[in-house]
Amino acid sequence: MQSEYRPIRVALLGAGSVGAQVARLLIENREELAKRVGAELQLVGVAVRDTKAKRGAEIPQDLITSDAESILTGADIVIELMGGIDPAYDLIKKALNSGADVITANKALIAAKGNELIDLAQQLGAQLYYEAAVGGAIPIIRPLRESLAGDKINRVMGIVNGTTNYILDQMDSKNVDFQSALKEAQVLGYAEADPTADIEGFDAASKAAILASLAFHSDVPVEKVHREGITSITSAQIQTARQAGYALKLLAIGERVDQGLVVRVHPTLIPLNHPLAAVRGAYNAVFVEAESAGRLMFYGAGAGGKQTASAVLGDLVSAAKRHLAGGPGLASSTHANLNVLPVQSTRTRFQITLRVSDQPGVLASIAGEFAAQNISVETVAQSVPGDGEPAAVLTIMTHIASEGDLEKVVESISKNKAVVSVESVLRVEGI
Amino acid sequence: MQSEYRPIRVALLGAGSVGAQVARLLIENREELAKRVGAELQLVGVAVRDTKAKRGAEIPQDLITSDAESILTGADIVIELMGGIDPAYDLIKKALNSGADVITANKALIAAKGNELIDLAQQLGAQLYYEAAVGGAIPIIRPLRESLAGDKINRVMGIVNGTTNYILDQMDSKNVDFQSALKEAQVLGYAEADPTADIEGFDAASKAAILASLAFHSDVPVEKVHREGITSITSAQIQTARQAGYALKLLAIGERVDQGLVVRVHPTLIPLNHPLAAVRGAYNAVFVEAESAGRLMFYGAGAGGKQTASAVLGDLVSAAKRHLAGGPGLASSTHANLNVLPVQSTRTRFQITLRVSDQPGVLASIAGEFAAQNISVETVAQSVPGDGEPAAVLTIMTHIASEGDLEKVVESISKNKAVVSVESVLRVEGI
Repeated sequence: MQSEYRPIRVALLGAGSVGAQVARLLIENREELAKRVGAELQLVGVAVRDTKAKRGAEIPQDLITSDAESILTGADIVIELMGGIDPAYDLIKKALNSGADVITANKALIAAKGNELIDLAQQLGAQLYYEAAVGGAIPIIRPLRESLAGDKINRVMGIVNGTTNYILDQMDSKNVDFQSALKEAQVLGYAEADPTADIEGFDAASKAAILASLAFHSDVPVEKVHREGITSITSAQIQTARQAGYALKLLAIGERVDQGLVVRVHPTLIPLNHPLAAVRGAYNAVFVEAESAGRLMFYGAGAGGKQTASAVLGDLVSAAKRHLAGGPGLASSTHANLNVLPVQSTRTRFQITLRVSDQPGVLASIAGEFAAQNISVETVAQSVPGDGEPAAVLTIMTHIASEGDLEKVVESISKNKAVVSVESVLRVEGI
Repeated sequence: MQSEYRPIRVALLGAGSVGAQVARLLIENREELAKRVGAELQLVGVAVRDTKAKRGAEIPQDLITSDAESILTGADIVIELMGGIDPAYDLIKKALNSGADVITANKALIAAKGNELIDLAQQLGAQLYYEAAVGGAIPIIRPLRESLAGDKINRVMGIVNGTTNYILDQMDSKNVDFQSALKEAQVLGYAEADPTADIEGFDAASKAAILASLAFHSDVPVEKVHREGITSITSAQIQTARQAGYALKLLAIGERVDQGLVVRVHPTLIPLNHPLAAVRGAYNAVFVEAESAGRLMFYGAGAGGKQTASAVLGDLVSAAKRHLAGGPGLASSTHANLNVLPVQSTRTRFQITLRVSDQPGVLASIAGEFAAQNISVETVAQSVPGDGEPAAVLTIMTHIASEGDLEKVVESISKNKAVVSVESVLRVEGI
């Protein structure tokens, strides 16, 4: 196709697993992309840390440089796939200031500096796209930002980290312990050598901040996201939950409460018939509850070079079309300015598992502690202690209660003489 | 908020269940919408068929008129929610010609005239939005059109009609027959008094044409969509399928094949562990398989006044922002120009259920018929005939075969003397 337009100059920062796939698709699908955009997309340079590193044949050698700033000059669109804050943050600001639109898959950067960069882009009449930063290939940013722009979202709840979902799913379906499941995830490449960012919930917290910020049009600093990882979860816990009709998932949750928002990442019980319970392996899904639209779910591969590259190319086609025709500037995404409240403002159901000494009056004593904080108990299940075991296991499911009140109960219960230990406190969602 | 822009004038054609909700949300959420858009959205008129009809308080009486053309004049954005081809088609053309952007939820019109209207809008520098035409509140048009714009979609497969999914789900979970389930759906308002459009698959065929047209960038006339309804499905069939590990769903499927596309709507067996199998009640979901993105699913309420209004308002915010700032014109959506082939070009698995006389050599004779067309049989299950019943039931599952070859087998089998009747032929997807 001959186009009336000059080629659109695309600079690529980073050539890891996502960057290599983006370069390959740009080159392999050159003609088809030109038809979709209405002008050719020309890859003008690929900035890498080490120009001597071994890499596949996807990227023409003459486009590779270690001088990232040099390829920003004259670029119409800059794709940042380096990850991390430095130097990505400075390079994106330079690119925006030089008049380019920017596409990034950098969740850490968007969670930390997203609103600042969006404001900068808005002032400059440029665009910042980051569909690939959350949920890999799953279109979730655009639906939140555009499709639901006329609705009021009350809650976003997602499985946004494939590594932890894979680990929990293995512990569930194969009854293996956390360490074995983690090791297998590392062998398969689902988990990093240092898995901290995934298993401690840091990655999910970044994504929770991004999703909540978009859904509620508010500034959600990642430091205000309550975060718990999955390292203390046992496969026995998961099996017990399944028998009771629940799946145990690491969820990222953002929701409106009375005075603002609560945003939190933690292991969560959800009913087995909830759509999120069926999300297996390394898949991701984001569940949205909106006032008019009702319940929506977006499901797909949350990571992977090819998958993330698909989201980057979707943004690239949008950016290129806008480049040709102009288009609406970004509205400031924080006009609602809701406060992000501490996790104690959460109201939900809780499941508390206790080891208690097997003697008369224990149940009444524990029940009294809940009543004292006005927390209503829905069910109590007591397991008979095994031979020679002095302690029974008590599993208590509450009605909806405030997390602040629940914390007080747990504190006082843990001092109760009949209580040997508080085994776990899990939040229950999706009922 | 004071805006530097004059209000954006919005005309509404139609005030049924969706229109009334759109009017309500526009008025109730005036301030919030103004913040999101950057200018006020002013409802300037609501065209209705009968101005005397009783309606809720959502719509100010002085905005109501029976003269649709009169409110087009001076409108910046026209929302068409009348349904049907006439007069919606003419009014949309008039609106586009007068310089307005148009939003519609009219699936019949988009399936029949969508590409023509998109081309017209493109020539005029206007936009046509129709997120609400498929999947109610589920954002599916925008993800296909934008998020996956840089990817290659190989298959779209959806539960796109809530009425039939509700009926099949009731037949499945409550073991009721088709007529009872239909009657209940009518009582609950899920099915119309005349349910033909739903139960015969016409509604799903319109949506299949729209989805396939977008996914494959090709012109997909609704007449070329192979269509079968659910009226001949029995609850025994659904129960038997479930025992064998399958759910029976009415699916709309579009897929690339060797020489083009096949687009079809028919009852389908899918494995119970497939994400689409878990879509219950009147919910809808669209499953997409793309070369880079892999498997994606979009899930939510497929109908309902409020839900559809949410999708319309999402389009309205996009249209209003574009109105303020300009934006990329619509690319012609049919540049790939793939041929829509007859259903015989489909390659899939089939399940054939036969009543056969209970005598030696029957199985060999039937197996021979499949072998003669080079169709490989995966499993055969034979049920023992009941007391006094002369016929046994044979359930045959094939490997992947062409639908054309399968038709030949079915034709010759039905003439086989040992075959009492061909009970059903079902396609099996999602394995």
